[in-house]
Amino acid sequence: MLLSTPYVDHAPAAEETLLRCRELVRPALRTAVDRLHPWPRRVVSYSFGWVAADGSERAAPGSGGGTGQGVRPALAVLAAEAVGGACGSAVPGAVAVELVHASTLVHDDVADRGEQRRGRPAAWKEFGTGPAVLSGDALLALAVDVVSRVGGERSAQAVRLVSGALAGLVHGRSEEALFGSRPWAGPDAVRPAEYREAALRRTGTLLGCAAALGALLAGGSAGSVEAFGTAGRRLGLALQLAREVAGIWGPPATGRRPDHGSLLRGARTMPVVAAAALDQGVAGRLEKLLGGGEPLTRARAAYAAQLVEEAGGREFAVCEARRALESARDALDGLALAGPAAEEIDALAEFVVERRLRDCEDAGAVRMRVL
Amino acid sequence: MLLSTPYVDHAPAAEETLLRCRELVRPALRTAVDRLHPWPRRVVSYSFGWVAADGSERAAPGSGGGTGQGVRPALAVLAAEAVGGACGSAVPGAVAVELVHASTLVHDDVADRGEQRRGRPAAWKEFGTGPAVLSGDALLALAVDVVSRVGGERSAQAVRLVSGALAGLVHGRSEEALFGSRPWAGPDAVRPAEYREAALRRTGTLLGCAAALGALLAGGSAGSVEAFGTAGRRLGLALQLAREVAGIWGPPATGRRPDHGSLLRGARTMPVVAAAALDQGVAGRLEKLLGGGEPLTRARAAYAAQLVEEAGGREFAVCEARRALESARDALDGLALAGPAAEEIDALAEFVVERRLRDCEDAGAVRMRVL
Repeated sequence: MLLSTPYVDHAPAAEETLLRCRELVRPALRTAVDRLHPWPRRVVSYSFGWVAADGSERAAPGSGGGTGQGVRPALAVLAAEAVGGACGSAVPGAVAVELVHASTLVHDDVADRGEQRRGRPAAWKEFGTGPAVLSGDALLALAVDVVSRVGGERSAQAVRLVSGALAGLVHGRSEEALFGSRPWAGPDAVRPAEYREAALRRTGTLLGCAAALGALLAGGSAGSVEAFGTAGRRLGLALQLAREVAGIWGPPATGRRPDHGSLLRGARTMPVVAAAALDQGVAGRLEKLLGGGEPLTRARAAYAAQLVEEAGGREFAVCEARRALESARDALDGLALAGPAAEEIDALAEFVVERRLRDCEDAGAVRMRVL
Repeated sequence: MLLSTPYVDHAPAAEETLLRCRELVRPALRTAVDRLHPWPRRVVSYSFGWVAADGSERAAPGSGGGTGQGVRPALAVLAAEAVGGACGSAVPGAVAVELVHASTLVHDDVADRGEQRRGRPAAWKEFGTGPAVLSGDALLALAVDVVSRVGGERSAQAVRLVSGALAGLVHGRSEEALFGSRPWAGPDAVRPAEYREAALRRTGTLLGCAAALGALLAGGSAGSVEAFGTAGRRLGLALQLAREVAGIWGPPATGRRPDHGSLLRGARTMPVVAAAALDQGVAGRLEKLLGGGEPLTRARAAYAAQLVEEAGGREFAVCEARRALESARDALDGLALAGPAAEEIDALAEFVVERRLRDCEDAGAVRMRVL
């Protein structure tokens, strides 16, 4: 049954799109990074997954070139094409957004003492705190530099989109950090609506910025820039929620049984926040399980996942993800978009959100059979 | 004799200028900071010296409102006036530069584990590494936001000045950090010319950016923007070198005998770098004294100061500082500048560089009498 649903049809097209856009953007990203002083350049190139810690080029930097799936750059490029522009016009915007994203990863790992990033030691762990802090600053500076070089009347507006995104990210990161000190149960617990707002800022901001920059730099109307910004933000939220569901019930890379990864770390995600809000009894038990700041055993993480599921946290997060995906589509509804790019956006959005959600359903089904 | 020299005459005028410009810029700086999320806003307001760690307003934030002497904002304002503009036009530029400066201080303290800043615990020490890293990012984002809001055709150029300054700072901070791993003696020792280039970037960049932004935002010609940028960078170098001389031979706040403060910490400054370059024998002895990474005793710091002085390091740094001050003036030579502001710039530059150098001479004279 699952094999005949639309997301499977979308997968080859969406992967093709991601690949095409990654290959369009990556050379410009490397050229920008090459302008950095050699010292932060080494750290930055390591963070992008291009080089080993000693600076030597990596033979197989992974499908995304170490930069993840590439949804942000793809959305910038597709937005440019959809408003009738050339794909190349979006490249500085895509590069700037990737640089900002890399900066927040490097700085967040310093802030949280996160030791691993994409299966390798985090930059601060490999090079030291000082070089990591400086490299994050270098990435931010470079991002602003890249958009300010675009030239023409759109340059100032592009810079304002980036500076607005930087401010939004700070806001989202601040909210998230404050959530950590809130209780899991009772009147001061984080509400799902608050969590959604923070996630919209934290993850939606950069996807919204990428989409808006793509439309802007390709000469799109003010209305289309605005609409792409909104669509990108909502898609970012959908993506984040789908990732959070997959982080609990998704199959790990090596198998098809849920690994409850984010619960092992005690992370506060939408399914957990929603479960706690929906059932105060569950909230108290989740607080005991997850609120201690200690990593959980596998058995306790599995029990927490069951509590969250029974309280309706999983269903709530899945619904919210699908609703965000739908509202992202709605944002683009009034626009007259150019042919193939509009379809590619649809396929991409469906692919990155629905595939994750359905993979979880598959894993759940396998688990049910195994039990 | 010393009382009749020009710098004494300049002092009241220069202090008046600094006060006037600080009072012009500070409200806009606070308004900008008020736009931050409350969490980073607290850390940022603490870093500027406006509030205590608990967020309560400080009764006496010090003469500079905790933001130092205020040479950068003053130079932005004076440049605007000197090209015939209103002082207020420079304010967004002055605010942006102060925000960038504050960001580098907060992040540098995280990077170097510097525990004290302006006589109080550093931001990371008071609030934690995470909030300090995020607050530095918030300051950078806000700086870009402030200049991007200027509007009009000059906005894009103002943003390019700021992004250029951010890149220059990263370059200067990288160079300085790399100097730390170089030997004190031999062919790989840091050369005075290299040190000067790094100091020009590290300290000159922001003063140059402030001056150029002032001229730009007030409607100055491309030539005057360029000239003010150059003059500001050179003044920044002069200021840095004068500070370094004062850090070794200057009188501490409480007395008039040199306290060799920067040598106690083993800091690599122009007098030391120059002494090592001028005399390889001294270089070897300085390496033994300063290269261990341990704080020095007062007696050993005094001995190191004597070595540096005898090798000609002090004289070299003083000459370089005066040469930089002179060349800063030269940069403005061809411009037809508006009356009082041009004189105020002269007085300010003389005051901030010469006063420090002459204070050291006074302290030296007192020391000679005491010995």
